Amino acid sequence: MAAEIVNPRSDSETDGEEPFDPAFALHRGGKMAVRATVPVRDRDDLSLAYTPGVAKVCSAIAEQPELVYDYTWKSQVVAVVTDGSAVLGLGDIGPEASLPVMEGKAILFKQFGGVDAVPIALDCRDVDEIVDTVVRLAPSFGGINLEDISAPRCFEVERRLQERLDIPVFHDDQHGTAIVTLAALRNAAKLTGRSLGQLRAVISGAGAAGVAIAKILIEAGIGDVAVCDRKGIVSADRDDLTDVKRDVAGFTNKAGLTGSLESALDGADVFIGVSGGTVAEAAVSKMAANAMIFAMANPDPEIHPDVAHKYAAVVATGRSDYPNQINNVLAFPGIFSGALQVRATRITEGMKLAAAEALAAVVADELSADCVIPSPFDERVAPAVTAAVAAAARAEGVARR
Amino acid sequence: MAAEIVNPRSDSETDGEEPFDPAFALHRGGKMAVRATVPVRDRDDLSLAYTPGVAKVCSAIAEQPELVYDYTWKSQVVAVVTDGSAVLGLGDIGPEASLPVMEGKAILFKQFGGVDAVPIALDCRDVDEIVDTVVRLAPSFGGINLEDISAPRCFEVERRLQERLDIPVFHDDQHGTAIVTLAALRNAAKLTGRSLGQLRAVISGAGAAGVAIAKILIEAGIGDVAVCDRKGIVSADRDDLTDVKRDVAGFTNKAGLTGSLESALDGADVFIGVSGGTVAEAAVSKMAANAMIFAMANPDPEIHPDVAHKYAAVVATGRSDYPNQINNVLAFPGIFSGALQVRATRITEGMKLAAAEALAAVVADELSADCVIPSPFDERVAPAVTAAVAAAARAEGVARR
Repeated sequence: MAAEIVNPRSDSETDGEEPFDPAFALHRGGKMAVRATVPVRDRDDLSLAYTPGVAKVCSAIAEQPELVYDYTWKSQVVAVVTDGSAVLGLGDIGPEASLPVMEGKAILFKQFGGVDAVPIALDCRDVDEIVDTVVRLAPSFGGINLEDISAPRCFEVERRLQERLDIPVFHDDQHGTAIVTLAALRNAAKLTGRSLGQLRAVISGAGAAGVAIAKILIEAGIGDVAVCDRKGIVSADRDDLTDVKRDVAGFTNKAGLTGSLESALDGADVFIGVSGGTVAEAAVSKMAANAMIFAMANPDPEIHPDVAHKYAAVVATGRSDYPNQINNVLAFPGIFSGALQVRATRITEGMKLAAAEALAAVVADELSADCVIPSPFDERVAPAVTAAVAAAARAEGVARR
Repeated sequence: MAAEIVNPRSDSETDGEEPFDPAFALHRGGKMAVRATVPVRDRDDLSLAYTPGVAKVCSAIAEQPELVYDYTWKSQVVAVVTDGSAVLGLGDIGPEASLPVMEGKAILFKQFGGVDAVPIALDCRDVDEIVDTVVRLAPSFGGINLEDISAPRCFEVERRLQERLDIPVFHDDQHGTAIVTLAALRNAAKLTGRSLGQLRAVISGAGAAGVAIAKILIEAGIGDVAVCDRKGIVSADRDDLTDVKRDVAGFTNKAGLTGSLESALDGADVFIGVSGGTVAEAAVSKMAANAMIFAMANPDPEIHPDVAHKYAAVVATGRSDYPNQINNVLAFPGIFSGALQVRATRITEGMKLAAAEALAAVVADELSADCVIPSPFDERVAPAVTAAVAAAARAEGVARR
């Protein structure tokens, strides 16, 4: 979620004693467990759930491989896979230290989407090794949620896994953020009486989230979008671009802007911050009338809401203590729930767009400047996203049923 | 468990419709799920279990890696890893078709040992690939239970994983079966007034279970043991032995027997069957007085109990409908529960022997020819094994606490 993009490194000292903090107390022993969903109390139970009864089920799957979806939890379980290289705002803290986040993600999958999820933190960094490892463990899972893998490796890991696997592979830091951002932007445009095609957006950040947001906004028909990294607007004239950024330069920035983020903001309708840092108020003041400012860095938005409200019609952040929180939990549980429901082979662009539309539609009559996106605890969200994603999967021919 | 060694391939036809069978009905949707052990109902909950609270916990683990055991479920979760190459008696049915067994194993871990377990069925067969894959996913788990990997690869996979990982790696088809067999044999010897050193045993089967049983019996001080494969006694004079069997020939068969299984049985005190097939009654009749026959093939013991009882003082099988069932579930839940409790870095031979002794001791005053091993549902078993394994781990210096 955007809420993950920047987070301060804790300054709490640990010296063997448990730090005095409610977060540590809550985490003691971990945050999840497995449970049996069938009885195993006596010999009769065991003879069905285990030997000898289980042998018939195994044989049936060996003969008809698709039965694995009927008779195992593959149909409902997602691996939350990371290498611990880009965890929250903490950066490269390694697989073990990433586990509390992956467990958190797993229980959000369960709580919000009814999807079982298992944290898999990998002790490898090489793209080939990550891809090979996930391909090998994929038979046990109905989907792969990639998490907190640093850019630009995350793009190649996802692309290659999607090529090699016949189950959904979804890098949430990219697409979850993009879907929720698009949903909020749709509603902000509606509120201010414009179509997406009338909007010009500036994205601060060319990592996983920034690139994915740029892509989905273009698919959704935004007028124009410029992506900025630390050196300014990602434009074709630059000679310092990675492959991914060169690609970005090719499909964004129709206007051919060059220069700084601040210069790009001059007359822009939308600011989307997924980078951290601070944008000078002078630049913000030059945005177009009825601007939309989505400053999603945590805990410090790139443009403080108090400043943003002086110039913008709609303000969103990654924080839970301001209105319009751009929170990935609005997307990923329903995305996977819908994909698993129809046993989708992948998650297509159409499924992502459908998720964003469904998410935006939840707001409906409650639409206001302080409500362009539902609360993470709005119980209508996951069912709406699930239904939309399942329907889109069927429409796009990637559903197994 | 020995109950897995031989099982008939189901002859039920599957043609897309669900076969009419209670085992299929029970398996529909799988047999397990995950659950959150902490609340995630509102923003305050999320701010502790997920961002921003989780960041402090991640940072603490990054600074002090061993804290991963305090603040994640690593401390209590085992990966049940297979490649689907030797599943029950079904053989090489592949990873997907093996999943019902791995899920069954996982829920037995939970039910009997309170240990969380996750099925990981791997889509690879090469030893290097299996080892590398498990090493890479190991950060997420407190232990690795290898399952249904065919011999002789299973021996090398286990050995190399033990060398590379600092968490317990345990191939249950080997050691689980061996531990329960030793426990039953200890009690059978006690019942018939002999020490293990006075016994000569013949093992039918030189696969995972047979080799491991031979090893543990020798460690426990058995008088002599001969291991037989399909071609007869594994002896140093044979030129058709695999590396593993050559090793077996080196540490077994002090008497230097050669020839057939039947010839080895002449005067033997103990028969241990982990192979399937049938042993001729004529050969059984030549065993020593007060013989012990553990015929563990399922569903058809190598020596039918009715025949065995004609010549033996103690008869055990792998079946639940006869007394003295040699069932791995008597061992693996407590083994891992004990190892995890003290955060053991490995499972030593001493821990296995301690498990067998504790398991044997549960029977105590109830010891009789029909009760040399407890029932799988005896609630004293897992706590006794857990305590013994934890104590042995500390005594052997492999406990982290």
